[in-house]
Amino acid sequence: MPPSPAPRDSLAAGEDKSRLDLRLKQVAIDTHLENVAYLSRDCIPYRIEGFQALSRIDVVAGDRHITATLNVVDDPGIVGPEEVGLSEDAFRRLGLLAGSVARVRHAEKPASTGALFRKISGERLTKADYHGIVQDISQGHYSKIELTAFLIATNNGAMDRDEIYYLTDAMVASGRRLGWHEHMVVDKHCIGGIPGNRTSMLVVPIVAAHGLLCPKTSSRAITSPSGTADTMEVLANVNLEPQRIAEIVREHRACLAWGGTADLSPADDVMISVERPLSLDSTTQMVASILSKKIAAGSTHLLLDIPIGPSAKVKNVPDAQRLRKLFEYVASRMDLKLETLVSDGRQPIGNGIGPMLEARDVMRVLENDPRAPQDLRHKSLHLAGRMIEFDPDVRGGEGYAIARDILESGRALAKMKDIIAAQGAKAFNPNDFVRARLSHDVIAERDGMVTAIDNLRIAQVARLAGAPKVPNAGIDLAHKLGDTVRKGDTLYTLYAEYPSDLMFAIQLCERGSGYTIGDAAELLHTWLEF
Amino acid sequence: MPPSPAPRDSLAAGEDKSRLDLRLKQVAIDTHLENVAYLSRDCIPYRIEGFQALSRIDVVAGDRHITATLNVVDDPGIVGPEEVGLSEDAFRRLGLLAGSVARVRHAEKPASTGALFRKISGERLTKADYHGIVQDISQGHYSKIELTAFLIATNNGAMDRDEIYYLTDAMVASGRRLGWHEHMVVDKHCIGGIPGNRTSMLVVPIVAAHGLLCPKTSSRAITSPSGTADTMEVLANVNLEPQRIAEIVREHRACLAWGGTADLSPADDVMISVERPLSLDSTTQMVASILSKKIAAGSTHLLLDIPIGPSAKVKNVPDAQRLRKLFEYVASRMDLKLETLVSDGRQPIGNGIGPMLEARDVMRVLENDPRAPQDLRHKSLHLAGRMIEFDPDVRGGEGYAIARDILESGRALAKMKDIIAAQGAKAFNPNDFVRARLSHDVIAERDGMVTAIDNLRIAQVARLAGAPKVPNAGIDLAHKLGDTVRKGDTLYTLYAEYPSDLMFAIQLCERGSGYTIGDAAELLHTWLEF
Repeated sequence: MPPSPAPRDSLAAGEDKSRLDLRLKQVAIDTHLENVAYLSRDCIPYRIEGFQALSRIDVVAGDRHITATLNVVDDPGIVGPEEVGLSEDAFRRLGLLAGSVARVRHAEKPASTGALFRKISGERLTKADYHGIVQDISQGHYSKIELTAFLIATNNGAMDRDEIYYLTDAMVASGRRLGWHEHMVVDKHCIGGIPGNRTSMLVVPIVAAHGLLCPKTSSRAITSPSGTADTMEVLANVNLEPQRIAEIVREHRACLAWGGTADLSPADDVMISVERPLSLDSTTQMVASILSKKIAAGSTHLLLDIPIGPSAKVKNVPDAQRLRKLFEYVASRMDLKLETLVSDGRQPIGNGIGPMLEARDVMRVLENDPRAPQDLRHKSLHLAGRMIEFDPDVRGGEGYAIARDILESGRALAKMKDIIAAQGAKAFNPNDFVRARLSHDVIAERDGMVTAIDNLRIAQVARLAGAPKVPNAGIDLAHKLGDTVRKGDTLYTLYAEYPSDLMFAIQLCERGSGYTIGDAAELLHTWLEF
Repeated sequence: MPPSPAPRDSLAAGEDKSRLDLRLKQVAIDTHLENVAYLSRDCIPYRIEGFQALSRIDVVAGDRHITATLNVVDDPGIVGPEEVGLSEDAFRRLGLLAGSVARVRHAEKPASTGALFRKISGERLTKADYHGIVQDISQGHYSKIELTAFLIATNNGAMDRDEIYYLTDAMVASGRRLGWHEHMVVDKHCIGGIPGNRTSMLVVPIVAAHGLLCPKTSSRAITSPSGTADTMEVLANVNLEPQRIAEIVREHRACLAWGGTADLSPADDVMISVERPLSLDSTTQMVASILSKKIAAGSTHLLLDIPIGPSAKVKNVPDAQRLRKLFEYVASRMDLKLETLVSDGRQPIGNGIGPMLEARDVMRVLENDPRAPQDLRHKSLHLAGRMIEFDPDVRGGEGYAIARDILESGRALAKMKDIIAAQGAKAFNPNDFVRARLSHDVIAERDGMVTAIDNLRIAQVARLAGAPKVPNAGIDLAHKLGDTVRKGDTLYTLYAEYPSDLMFAIQLCERGSGYTIGDAAELLHTWLEF
C-alpha cells in the first residue's frame, strides 16, 4: 500500500521542517561493534523516509554523523516519537550530549562500495581500492553483511600477492603507527595453533637483556586455551595505556603487554569479529593481519615462527615454504626485515596448557629450575638466538650461545622481574600455580610409545576445563612424543575449579584423549632445524 | 580479567539452580528478519556463561527454543536481571506467553555449519548438504554473517549445474508447495530489468480465456519502478490469503496476486534480504530463486522471457544461450517443462513507467484502444501464443493467432474484469491515471533519431519521481527507438506528486536523460524472434 502522503506533502511544501528534528538519546543496550539506531514507529522521519527495520541510516547532528542499523521501536519508554536512540558504543562514538538535535536519513553507501562489488565479481583491486575499503571498515561504515562479503570474496586464492600487500598497507594506514626513534625494533610472532608455546615470555627478556628494543604486544586467546597476554596476566598487569607502554619500553627496552588498547591496525579487530564465527582461517588474512599489526607497532625486524605438524595449522614443509615466501614478499614491500623459522609443531610446547600452568613453565625456565620443560627452553633459546643475530655486531651462528648465557646467568630472570614490576606485579604464591581445586588423571590404556599428540584435541580439552577464563584451569602433560609408557601411567592431568567444567573435559577425553600410544616405528620424525 | 567466580561456583555445586530461570518478555523493538535477545548485564546467566554482545544464544522454554543475537541491556526498564527479552518477531516465532520461564545457553552452531565451511573452502556440496543449509536458512538459524558467507561462497562460478539443481530442490522443500490437481499449470516469468514490461497482466487473462490454468503470483518492485504486483494493485487488491487465491483460481482459471503471503520458497526471501544491500545479481541465485518459486507454486509449464540489450541484464545472444541452457538443465531435473524466449531488451516496453501509468497501458491494450502501445501488445501476444501452444490440442505456430483473436474479441478484457472483481476492484477513474499533481517534459537537445534508451537510467529517474511508492508517479515515454525527433520535442514526461521528488528526478535527467539522439546508422539492430 502507498504510504499516507499527508506528512510528506506538507513537509515538501516547507511548512514544518522542524518536525524532522529529533532529540538524541542513549539507549542502554550494548550491541558491541555494530552501531544500532532506535526510532519510534510513530516518528515523522520514519514515516516519511520509508525506512525498514535493518535499513542502514545516518544519524546527523551538526557536523557529525554516524551510520547505524535501524531498529524500529514500539515502546515510548525506549524512544519516543521525537527521539532518536543510539546503542551505547554508537552514542559514545558520535560523541554528543543526550538531547542534542539530530536528523536521520538513508545512509549513503560507503564510498568503497563500488570496489567491494568489483571484488565480489572476482576482479583484481588496486591499492587505492584497498585503502578505501579498509578505511570504511575501520570507521564502522560497513555493515556485517558488507564485511562478510569482503572477507569471503578475498578468501584463499582470490587475491594475488600484490593485493595482499595493498591490503596490509591499508590496514597499517587505518590506525595508529608507533615510532620508537631507534634503528632496530625487533619482534617475534608465531602463526599459532600449538598449545603451551609461550616462547615470547622467554625470548623478550633474553633479547632485551642483550640490549635489543622489543616492545612486545600480544593478543588474548581467541580459540586457544591461552594467549601470551592471558599467561602474562598471571604475573603482571597487561592492560596498559599506550603512554605507559612507551615509558616502560624506554626504561627497560621491552614490555609484554596486551595489544588491544593501542589502536594498531584497528580494521583487523573488526574483521576478526566476522572471521571468528565463520572459523575463517585464510592465509591472506593471516599475512595481512600479522604484518600490519607488527608494522603499526613500529617493528623493523620480525622473526616469524611457522610450526608444522599433522595437527598444526601448516601440515608439511612445501606448504610452509609457500607461506614463508608470501610473508617475505609482503614484508619486503613494506620494508620490514623478516626471518622465518619453520619449527616442530607435532605436539604442544612445554608441559602446562592454560594461563597459570604456562606461567609456571616460563618461570621455571627463567629460574633454571631442573623441572623446567626442556623443549620450551630449547625452542626459546633458538628463537632468541636468531633475533640476537639481527644485531649487526653478532656473527651468524653465535646467537644461541649468547642467549643461553643470558638465561643461565640469571640476567633474563632479572629482566623479566623488571618488566613485571614496571607493568605492575600480581600478588601470587608460586606454590599456588597448580592448586586448582579439582584434578583428574588421564591414563595410558596400553603399553607403548607416545607416537602422536593432537594439538587441537589438547586445546579443546583445556578450554573445557576452564582455560583461559579460569586462570589455574588447564592441562599438565606428563609425557611427550617418544616417551615410553606403561598401561595405567598418567599421560596428563586435568585441572579445573568447577565440577561441571571437569565433567565436560573428562567426557571429551573419553571420546579421545589426543594421545596415540603405538610402536616406536610409528613415531612421525621431522627433519626440521630443531 | 577472570570473571568473578562466586556465582558460578555455588551454581556448579547445585545450590541454587533456579537462579538460571528467567521470565520471558517481549521487547517492543522490530528487528525484522533478525532474532534479537535482550539480557540484563546484571543477570546471573549472563555473568556465568560469559556471553558477549552479538553472541548467538538459544532461548529455551519447555520444548521450544529460538536462536537469537544477544544485545546486552543496562536499563532495567527494558529488561531486568530476572528477564530475557525477545524482539517482536522473535517473540512471535517462539510463540509463548510473556512471563513463561525460559533459560539461555550458548547457541549450538546450525547443523549445516560443516557444509557451509566446506563451501567457503571451495568444495562441491551434495544434495543433502544443500537441503541442510536451506532448511537452516529458512528457519532463521543462520546469522546475517553466515547467510552472507553462503551467498558469496556460492556466487557466480562457484557452483556447478548439479549444485544449482540441489539448491533449487532444497528451496522448494523449505516451504509450502501448492497442488492444483490438473495436468497442466502454466506460468510465465521474465528475468527482469526492463522498465514498463507488464506483459503478465495481458498474458494471464489471454491464456486463461483460452482455458489454461494460470495461477500467477508476482513480486513487488525491489529495485525497479514497479513490479507486476505494484501495477496490479492499482486495479485490484493483490494481498490475498492462499485460501482465497485457490478459490479465485478454481473459479476463473487465473489470478494476478502478490506472492508474498504464500510461504513459497521462504528461504528465497531470507536470501534476498542479503542480496539486495550487496546488489548481488548472481546467475546461480536467479535460476534457483525463479525456478523454486514457480515449482512451489505448482507450475508444470513455464515460459521464460530473457530480454537482451546493452542495458538489460543479459547483454548478448551467447550469454542468453548459456543462461537458457542452465535454466533448461535445472528445470528438467525438477520435472518442469520450460520454454524460453529471448526478446528485445534494448528499451522499455510500453510507454508508462510506474504503477498507474503501466496500468493505463495494460488497460488500453485490453480495450483495443488505438492509443495502446504496440510493442507491449505485440510482445504480450507473442508470449501468450507460445503459452497457448503448451496446449497439446494447439498446432505449433497457431498460438499467436489464437491469442490475438482472444484479445481483439474482448474475451481477454472480460477475463481481466472477472479477475479484478474476484480479487476486489479498486475504485478509480480511468481519467485519473496520469493526473499526478506535477509534471515536467524532458526534451530533445538536437534533431536526429532515437538510437538508444538506457533502461537503468529510465528506471532510476522513475524511482526518484516517486514510483512505485507513489502510484501515479513515474515516466510517460513519448518516443521510442527509431523515432525521428526535432530539437525541443518531448522525449518523455515526468510525473510526481511532491516537489522534492520532481526536483531530484529532474536533477538526474540533467546529468543524462537516458536517451541518445543520433543518426539512423547508429541504431543498434537486433535479429531476435521479435
